[in-house]
Amino acid sequence: MPDQTHTPSAIVVGAGPVGTLWTIFLARRGYRVDVYERRSDMRAAGYTGGRSINLAMSVRGWTAIEQAGIRDQLENAALAMPGRKMHAVDGTLSYQPYGKANEAIYSVSRGGLNLELLNIAAAFPNVQFHFDHRCTELDLNASRISFEDMKTGTHKTLEAPLIFAADGAFSAVRYALQRTDRFDYVQRYIDHGYKELTIPANPDGSHRMDPLALHIWPRGNFMLIALPNADGSFTCTLFLPYEGDISFEHLTNDEAVRAFFQRYFSDAVPLMPTLIEDFWANPTSSLVTVQCYPWQWQGRVLLMGDAAHAIVPFYGQGMNAGFEDCTILDQMYDEFSGDWSRILPEFSQRRKQDGDAILELALRNFIEMRDLVGDPKFLLRKKIAARLHERHPDFLPVYSMVSFSNIPYHVALREDDRQNAMFRDILAIPDIENNWDGPEVERVFAEWQAKGG
Amino acid sequence: MPDQTHTPSAIVVGAGPVGTLWTIFLARRGYRVDVYERRSDMRAAGYTGGRSINLAMSVRGWTAIEQAGIRDQLENAALAMPGRKMHAVDGTLSYQPYGKANEAIYSVSRGGLNLELLNIAAAFPNVQFHFDHRCTELDLNASRISFEDMKTGTHKTLEAPLIFAADGAFSAVRYALQRTDRFDYVQRYIDHGYKELTIPANPDGSHRMDPLALHIWPRGNFMLIALPNADGSFTCTLFLPYEGDISFEHLTNDEAVRAFFQRYFSDAVPLMPTLIEDFWANPTSSLVTVQCYPWQWQGRVLLMGDAAHAIVPFYGQGMNAGFEDCTILDQMYDEFSGDWSRILPEFSQRRKQDGDAILELALRNFIEMRDLVGDPKFLLRKKIAARLHERHPDFLPVYSMVSFSNIPYHVALREDDRQNAMFRDILAIPDIENNWDGPEVERVFAEWQAKGG
Repeated sequence: MPDQTHTPSAIVVGAGPVGTLWTIFLARRGYRVDVYERRSDMRAAGYTGGRSINLAMSVRGWTAIEQAGIRDQLENAALAMPGRKMHAVDGTLSYQPYGKANEAIYSVSRGGLNLELLNIAAAFPNVQFHFDHRCTELDLNASRISFEDMKTGTHKTLEAPLIFAADGAFSAVRYALQRTDRFDYVQRYIDHGYKELTIPANPDGSHRMDPLALHIWPRGNFMLIALPNADGSFTCTLFLPYEGDISFEHLTNDEAVRAFFQRYFSDAVPLMPTLIEDFWANPTSSLVTVQCYPWQWQGRVLLMGDAAHAIVPFYGQGMNAGFEDCTILDQMYDEFSGDWSRILPEFSQRRKQDGDAILELALRNFIEMRDLVGDPKFLLRKKIAARLHERHPDFLPVYSMVSFSNIPYHVALREDDRQNAMFRDILAIPDIENNWDGPEVERVFAEWQAKGG
Repeated sequence: MPDQTHTPSAIVVGAGPVGTLWTIFLARRGYRVDVYERRSDMRAAGYTGGRSINLAMSVRGWTAIEQAGIRDQLENAALAMPGRKMHAVDGTLSYQPYGKANEAIYSVSRGGLNLELLNIAAAFPNVQFHFDHRCTELDLNASRISFEDMKTGTHKTLEAPLIFAADGAFSAVRYALQRTDRFDYVQRYIDHGYKELTIPANPDGSHRMDPLALHIWPRGNFMLIALPNADGSFTCTLFLPYEGDISFEHLTNDEAVRAFFQRYFSDAVPLMPTLIEDFWANPTSSLVTVQCYPWQWQGRVLLMGDAAHAIVPFYGQGMNAGFEDCTILDQMYDEFSGDWSRILPEFSQRRKQDGDAILELALRNFIEMRDLVGDPKFLLRKKIAARLHERHPDFLPVYSMVSFSNIPYHVALREDDRQNAMFRDILAIPDIENNWDGPEVERVFAEWQAKGG
């Protein structure tokens, strides 16, 4: 037993990226941390891939990593994607930068990142990992949590005065909170499933497409995307409805799959030699969103990351939002002198609106990615936004707010509504295609700015 | 073991009104039914009240009871409430009939109704009740369900090829379904809590207020209601926000409670001699709403009643909606020749929109009851609606559709939107207070009818 009177302690449930990063924050504060994880130790088992192979990291993620003092150890594994490259049906390519010249989002390997965080956390003498441990029960009133050791089949029950639950979208801790009085909870699946596929590296290890971009094949109600990996390959993800005219339910044999890809993603097919094998070997996975409130229970149990706010991946913000939870909690630790009984309720109340906002923004971005990225009016809007941003540095396009700043998500969502209204007016300017850089745009912008304050 | 090859069998989870009524339907079809209930047998223990003391029964409830062939046994216990009586702050009373002369909703004792249904169900030789049994696990793939016998502490696991779960808003069966892929789920608590209070009978057993009405003290954001009981008493329910200026959080001592009632419900206070004792003895309870989809799993497990669609009580439709589930399922049994593998998915798909609609209608009726019932414009609208209904029997006010017909709830909700639009136009007629029965109203109505088809 650790000496509880002198060393503060906490239990972290979940050793994914968010749980492990938060463990590092706690360990740096001198906490004794016991981390319980259902899966096996990836340091021993080797990382087996899992479903989501790579992630997009943006400023919020880097901010958390920097605040944890571990940026140097993680920076090398990230591939910068300063823009997106759109693949039209006829194979035509077009490019849109995400932000200004020095701005980019980063493709990182989920497994590689998680492994590195585990190594950093495990190096603290006050951190203990317990893998293959499944949370079976949480007795809130008695402050006890129970785990099954899945290797031995034995059960143990622990005193748990302070629990941080970063155990994901299907959080066991949240299931316990769900049964407490006045706990609001929503889980919703979108109509689309996803399947991961691959574009392997060239024989010489180089990438078969431009690695300095996120590639998108927008096709209206569905899309294919590809993110570069450090080994020269790309991980592709097909997002497609489960049911309907063009959907997974019709892709039932080799021929149907081949015809579908040939028709909609013909320029990708020659780059995917194992398309058919991959299609059958990899699962079709669902996409769940989770909202709940409160995120905490009596200042003693806190939900973090996907356990509190699982979103769809279309803004590349899932992990960034979870990492930002850590940044904010760590700041509040100072603000409230480490008094968790005040930090947890306050965090839950302040941060909830940001969880809701990034979900809404991610749902909107799905429509943008699959539907609008190929729309001339939309591209024109992007061009005007970039020019306004250049001329008026105060004016931040919403994508930049979300990806290249730490401005709260709920502010970005409000700004999205405001900017949508402004661009409706701008795009209604007569012959806007030829006047996109003219004085009329500046006039609408000035009026809008005067209004918005 | 029963002879499974000849007698079809089913497990019903929950012996509340809906579970017990559905058991009767199944028993009449020749099913062997095992009913598992967490609570003790109220026939032995005596009915201990529970939280919700009485219920409003309307046409949908009676339709189910009639279809089950048990109307005679249940009719006597119901008290007709043909209208609502509104108590103004100054004690002034006004009365609004709910429908036409022969139409009423009925106050029934929840305990009494449940007991009677239990007696009817238990009289079938093919029905077996198992009280004090808590559902602990549902293994969907293996079709096995486990219960703990709470009296002995023993556990048993049963083969369960067909399960009907009527185990309420906190359904254990639904918690199992919630973890299946693509199961949508929402639980939301409204801002208000409720507390039950009582107006006892006069010494001679008579009622202290008009028993032929549902009494309402509408006060804007909160209200008190009272339903008559057969023993001469009334059960009162206070609906009040948990937090805020006027809320439960400020009613922390005798004086505050007394002052609050004296200020807002002064005509009720003399009728409530045990107000203060009751206020402290009875819990403040929360009000949860539940929506989910699908309501079934692979044609083998079905959620019914509150387990599938828990709503707020403001339309008096909670139990009626659950009973209507039974009516419709029983009709579908004939339509699909008893093939549950087809009935369950079809029921889930058809009925979901009705569950959503009655939730929305009940939320709207809360605003009507607490806020509008005392509003002159609203009363005028009611008067005009009644007159239109008289003159045009085809025109059914939404309240009548919901309470005095079996028209699907989703049709009633659509009609509510349509009628709201019409009454906005009618109430905008100049000097409508004096022209409410004039030709201009008829003109707007005729136009509206022509539009709506």
